[in-house]
Amino acid sequence: MEFQLKAELKCSGSVSEGVSSSEIEEFMKHCNIELLKKGAPPGCGAEIVRWNVRGEKIGLEIVSDRFVRAHDALLRLKNEFGKFLGRHRIGIRSMEIEDYEIAMDWEEGLAIKKLPFVREIKQEEGRLKLFLAVNEFLLEKRIPDRIIRLLEDKREAASWKGKKEHWELLFESKKKPFYFDKDPTEEMIRLGWIRHAAGRGQWIYGPQLTKIFRAFEHIILDNLLEPLGYEEMIFPKFVPWDVWKRSGHAKGIYPEAYYVCTPKTRDPEFWEEVMDYYKVTNEVPLDMIMERIEPVGGMCYAQCPPFWIFLLGKTIPDEILPITVFDRSGTSHRYESGGLHGIERLDEFHRVEIVWIGKKEQVIEHAKQLQEGYRRIFDEFLEIEWREAWVTPWFMAQEGKAGLAELKEVGTIDYEAVLPYSGKWLEFQNVSVNGDKYPKGFSVKLQSGEELWSGCSGVGLERWAAVLLAQKSLDPDKWSAKLRSAVGELPEVFRFL
Amino acid sequence: MEFQLKAELKCSGSVSEGVSSSEIEEFMKHCNIELLKKGAPPGCGAEIVRWNVRGEKIGLEIVSDRFVRAHDALLRLKNEFGKFLGRHRIGIRSMEIEDYEIAMDWEEGLAIKKLPFVREIKQEEGRLKLFLAVNEFLLEKRIPDRIIRLLEDKREAASWKGKKEHWELLFESKKKPFYFDKDPTEEMIRLGWIRHAAGRGQWIYGPQLTKIFRAFEHIILDNLLEPLGYEEMIFPKFVPWDVWKRSGHAKGIYPEAYYVCTPKTRDPEFWEEVMDYYKVTNEVPLDMIMERIEPVGGMCYAQCPPFWIFLLGKTIPDEILPITVFDRSGTSHRYESGGLHGIERLDEFHRVEIVWIGKKEQVIEHAKQLQEGYRRIFDEFLEIEWREAWVTPWFMAQEGKAGLAELKEVGTIDYEAVLPYSGKWLEFQNVSVNGDKYPKGFSVKLQSGEELWSGCSGVGLERWAAVLLAQKSLDPDKWSAKLRSAVGELPEVFRFL
Repeated sequence: MEFQLKAELKCSGSVSEGVSSSEIEEFMKHCNIELLKKGAPPGCGAEIVRWNVRGEKIGLEIVSDRFVRAHDALLRLKNEFGKFLGRHRIGIRSMEIEDYEIAMDWEEGLAIKKLPFVREIKQEEGRLKLFLAVNEFLLEKRIPDRIIRLLEDKREAASWKGKKEHWELLFESKKKPFYFDKDPTEEMIRLGWIRHAAGRGQWIYGPQLTKIFRAFEHIILDNLLEPLGYEEMIFPKFVPWDVWKRSGHAKGIYPEAYYVCTPKTRDPEFWEEVMDYYKVTNEVPLDMIMERIEPVGGMCYAQCPPFWIFLLGKTIPDEILPITVFDRSGTSHRYESGGLHGIERLDEFHRVEIVWIGKKEQVIEHAKQLQEGYRRIFDEFLEIEWREAWVTPWFMAQEGKAGLAELKEVGTIDYEAVLPYSGKWLEFQNVSVNGDKYPKGFSVKLQSGEELWSGCSGVGLERWAAVLLAQKSLDPDKWSAKLRSAVGELPEVFRFL
Repeated sequence: MEFQLKAELKCSGSVSEGVSSSEIEEFMKHCNIELLKKGAPPGCGAEIVRWNVRGEKIGLEIVSDRFVRAHDALLRLKNEFGKFLGRHRIGIRSMEIEDYEIAMDWEEGLAIKKLPFVREIKQEEGRLKLFLAVNEFLLEKRIPDRIIRLLEDKREAASWKGKKEHWELLFESKKKPFYFDKDPTEEMIRLGWIRHAAGRGQWIYGPQLTKIFRAFEHIILDNLLEPLGYEEMIFPKFVPWDVWKRSGHAKGIYPEAYYVCTPKTRDPEFWEEVMDYYKVTNEVPLDMIMERIEPVGGMCYAQCPPFWIFLLGKTIPDEILPITVFDRSGTSHRYESGGLHGIERLDEFHRVEIVWIGKKEQVIEHAKQLQEGYRRIFDEFLEIEWREAWVTPWFMAQEGKAGLAELKEVGTIDYEAVLPYSGKWLEFQNVSVNGDKYPKGFSVKLQSGEELWSGCSGVGLERWAAVLLAQKSLDPDKWSAKLRSAVGELPEVFRFL
């Protein structure tokens, strides 16, 4: 990797008049030997290859390898040069970056067309050359380093292409009898249990399916969460950017997010034209609205990230660990791919989100207890056939990454069940150990200074229902006695002509 | 009100050559006597005051009063003229509206600066003159009539200005002892029961307050909803425009809505630039996002409107009435005015929404049963001091209207309680009879053909808590034995250094 940078410093007085050229030469030579090599292996680092002094202006040309990158060299140099000029009562007024080229080896097949803060990109014969458009402020924000890291990301992402997500079978349940071979969504529509709502991938759940959902919640509460000491909380459901920045979702969630915008002002006069247009046309004026709102975040996507603001910046006494809480206070929303299908794959869904926090061993041990609890529930209440697999951690997938976490204890177990009507496997919940990702992202510390870890598990009510009804039918007589008693009588409220 | 319209018809052949001018004169005269007066009181209606024929073009000038408005006259005339020309084997190809002026008396104090489809507005000496920019399509969509209706709305809204919403005391509870004189939100923050979330007017509820919320739900369920035969449903929480058009919210909700936008496409390449920018800067590029999303509706505002899609276009057999359902499956979001205050006035809140549907008498009778039930709960469980008032119906307020409904049975009862720490009254729930508004808006009919009515009642969990804790303190020992037993032990999960 080669870096070539041209910059010009403007000073408060004439350097040509105030400082002898031999002194400047001495200074530059010294920098080339000491300052711009510091921290680099022998023979490596940055070098000032040309300079010139014209009155108050000093031109600089720096080249470097990847060890002391030219922009780091420039910032070091500016600092040192300031001290040097200060001894001649001259200050540095400003610094302009005239040119900054970064060149590197690059795979021919991987085209790079556009990059932030890069005004031109040349790609030929296995080489990539970037011409940056940056200023001092952007150098200080380490934008060139981040552009390079972004290129590394793109190279890594390209290497995943065509490869599947990681998937490794951990467990298979016993075979179970199936009592249904139809699509349960179709059947529920036919019986009036559900109806498609006005939005994309969105349903209205009638009394029967709602009662089944609530029974699922009670089964989880009574048989898993209460015995394990969980308490209920209410997590926010609108998610501002700041939460997604800390959780990592801001890296890759964009194509799937439901965005939330708020009015630029609540002043009714600002909105009068919109209301007038609607009243006159009966059409909502989308363009007028877009001019009057600003994007502030999104609707709940992963459910646990906004909870972490409760702990933001806090230090926790070791003795209250493990912390075990859950939330079931609202909807999650994803702009799903084309594969929308009934209650199996939808844009708006309902989930019990389970979060546990503790020391590393506590979190790993707790994940095992949850796994055991789930297996018991699937065997005794749902009587379904399912399997468990070790997959790419959900938080990596949602940041746009493939593969596995660096630590082998960190990762996601997906629970999948076959849908007899299609023969396809449906992921219906997960259990994840997230390592120190969230405590770090939200600056939560442990009193003892030990590493704080966390885990989460999302129980998709629609997915549980899809699996149960697909394998066992909509007829409660075909369900386990335990489930039947948890659900109770299915209510009949509506009838239509 | 006076209307003056100039239009030009273009025909498929030369009218000057194909039709004698005396025949045209005869036709126009006949229209002035019959066609353009039909339906108007004697001496009123529209009149063709000038016309001219040049080859294939016919110029028309029509004036009218409010009885047969000039644009209606023009549409009638075009139709009749088409038949007349048809007899000469000439067709009408197109119609252009050259000028359309509408003049009326208007209050000087009420300035009208901008109107949709109006290119100029003159307002002087108690007169308002509009110069419309319309075409045939817009005339057929009755845009001029809607502009006039909009002006009437604005006149009505102006007459409310300065006046308060309707408020009429219906009931006052007995005096009750107060055990607290502080702001309960401040106290809960101090005790770590809640913490402000990352968003505006948004809180994270810890285990203690969540347990109180769930106890409220169970009290309502066991003491009100179950005895009255309610069943739970799950209403959608993203609300597309179509729902708000049918519910009336599209008329006036804009300054207070949380808007929802979805990606224009889910294609990752379309989003690559956004992700790259974020990865390089750690800032979410709001402008780039705004270019890539489109507004599709809003987050739940009034809770019951999206339910009505379940019944859209259906006919219901009389014998299943009354229908009684409720929803508690998610959050509501309002961009509240400056008066955000703790859990009393917030942007994100939680509510049990209760909906009943029946014949007029059933709906009115049921509202009374709910009122009795609530009074019993407030007396026996919460032991609070409250009052009830007859107010502007919520659906009128949310459409931007003041005053009362036309029918005296239709309307909203607000429940208010005093907050001892501030002496202010807080509305903490309502019971509303909505008349036939929703069945009409969502085309729901009754088999017998009788009018279908509905009502709804929203129980704000934050508001109930604000009232209870402000009057009775955060100490369960000061609460009624019934409430204490419904809540159970308050859990202690978190502790911070």
